[in-house]
Amino acid sequence: MNLILLSPDDIENDRLVRVHDPRRLAHLREVHGARPGDLMTLGIEGGCLGRGKLLALSDDEALFDIAALNQGPPPPLPVHLVLALPRPRMLARTLEHVTALGVKHITLLNTRRVEKSYWQSPELGDDKIQRHLVFGLEQARDTRLPEVTLAKGFRPFVEDQLPSLLADRRGLVAHPGMPGDCPRGLDEPVLLLVGPEGGFIPWEVEQLLAAGCKGIHLGPRILRVETAVTALLARLF
Amino acid sequence: MNLILLSPDDIENDRLVRVHDPRRLAHLREVHGARPGDLMTLGIEGGCLGRGKLLALSDDEALFDIAALNQGPPPPLPVHLVLALPRPRMLARTLEHVTALGVKHITLLNTRRVEKSYWQSPELGDDKIQRHLVFGLEQARDTRLPEVTLAKGFRPFVEDQLPSLLADRRGLVAHPGMPGDCPRGLDEPVLLLVGPEGGFIPWEVEQLLAAGCKGIHLGPRILRVETAVTALLARLF
Repeated sequence: MNLILLSPDDIENDRLVRVHDPRRLAHLREVHGARPGDLMTLGIEGGCLGRGKLLALSDDEALFDIAALNQGPPPPLPVHLVLALPRPRMLARTLEHVTALGVKHITLLNTRRVEKSYWQSPELGDDKIQRHLVFGLEQARDTRLPEVTLAKGFRPFVEDQLPSLLADRRGLVAHPGMPGDCPRGLDEPVLLLVGPEGGFIPWEVEQLLAAGCKGIHLGPRILRVETAVTALLARLF
Repeated sequence: MNLILLSPDDIENDRLVRVHDPRRLAHLREVHGARPGDLMTLGIEGGCLGRGKLLALSDDEALFDIAALNQGPPPPLPVHLVLALPRPRMLARTLEHVTALGVKHITLLNTRRVEKSYWQSPELGDDKIQRHLVFGLEQARDTRLPEVTLAKGFRPFVEDQLPSLLADRRGLVAHPGMPGDCPRGLDEPVLLLVGPEGGFIPWEVEQLLAAGCKGIHLGPRILRVETAVTALLARLF
């Protein structure tokens, strides 16, 4: 936790916040060894960040002065990530990686090789997803939560959502064996589609290419989804 | 497991291998649903890979014909990775990521902000490390195991090992706040040094720069070690 992320519920007024939840209180005490008077890095969800002063710390509350929070969050990546729903533990870690890297738009997509049981996982609950996004923001000292949407049908996604997503973005399908090398250092909006373990099936790749996406690859090595997504984002931007 | 990695112990002759260990046998049965006659992707540790035929599968043995294994493994990354020893679970995952990405030389380094207890972790046992390297190779369809060495003193590493490591490699220290952007698409040998959670201390950075390394950064976001290392490798090569 490189930043203490403050939710709207924590804010008393434009100077004072009160943190009550056990997770952040425990972290303040055990990891930071925080004491009244300490300056800590704080950020307001969706807003500014900076150094705030810890005014008081008790068993059930931390009180901060936030008057000096005046920096903007780090720039986001210009990407909408469409990720075939990974297995639950991989989803959790991938959400943390991509949030830390600055992704702000994530669509979790059903494809043929996504196991149906993954859609029933408790990891897809709003609170669980939110938790991993918050971990990613706290890691990277960011304040703006990504937006996560679920697309439970591949065909409806391709027919109803993909055309407008591609209207002002370059579409890239990352898939082993595609002809194009992954581009480097882009400075334009991208829609990045990443398949499940085992990959998209050929018909899915055809649909995505027919819709205007370009196929790219990362070389001959087959990578786990979490490794591949981090590598793709680091190379693309 | 995208490749069944065969150790020297498995090899009976230049045509036949016998696999006995429960992990690979369970994977063959449960994940692949393998049956005699199936062609599977096999690779010989340190050697070739290709499609081998499953000749027989019993409760305690799988017998393969390996006569057709004639492809070389994918190219390695031209990097020696020096990684401040991460906490045990992060170490395990990072070894898998970087092995899958093609790193062949890894030094685990002590630095000031490495917790001393990490050096006592069972994860540093040869068998544990080997296991994560094998997982990385199986994921990426590679056969050449990385070499992992431990450098338990920062000063001895800098004085005794660093000069020769830098003799024919470009040294890059990844550290937040360094002046240089991480270079892209290098095609030359690199020594990449990555600090622990919390970073190198300023004295350590000075020592590495004085030895001839260049400081680079990945932007304003603070990343977990496993995310940072994957992102650095993907951007550098």
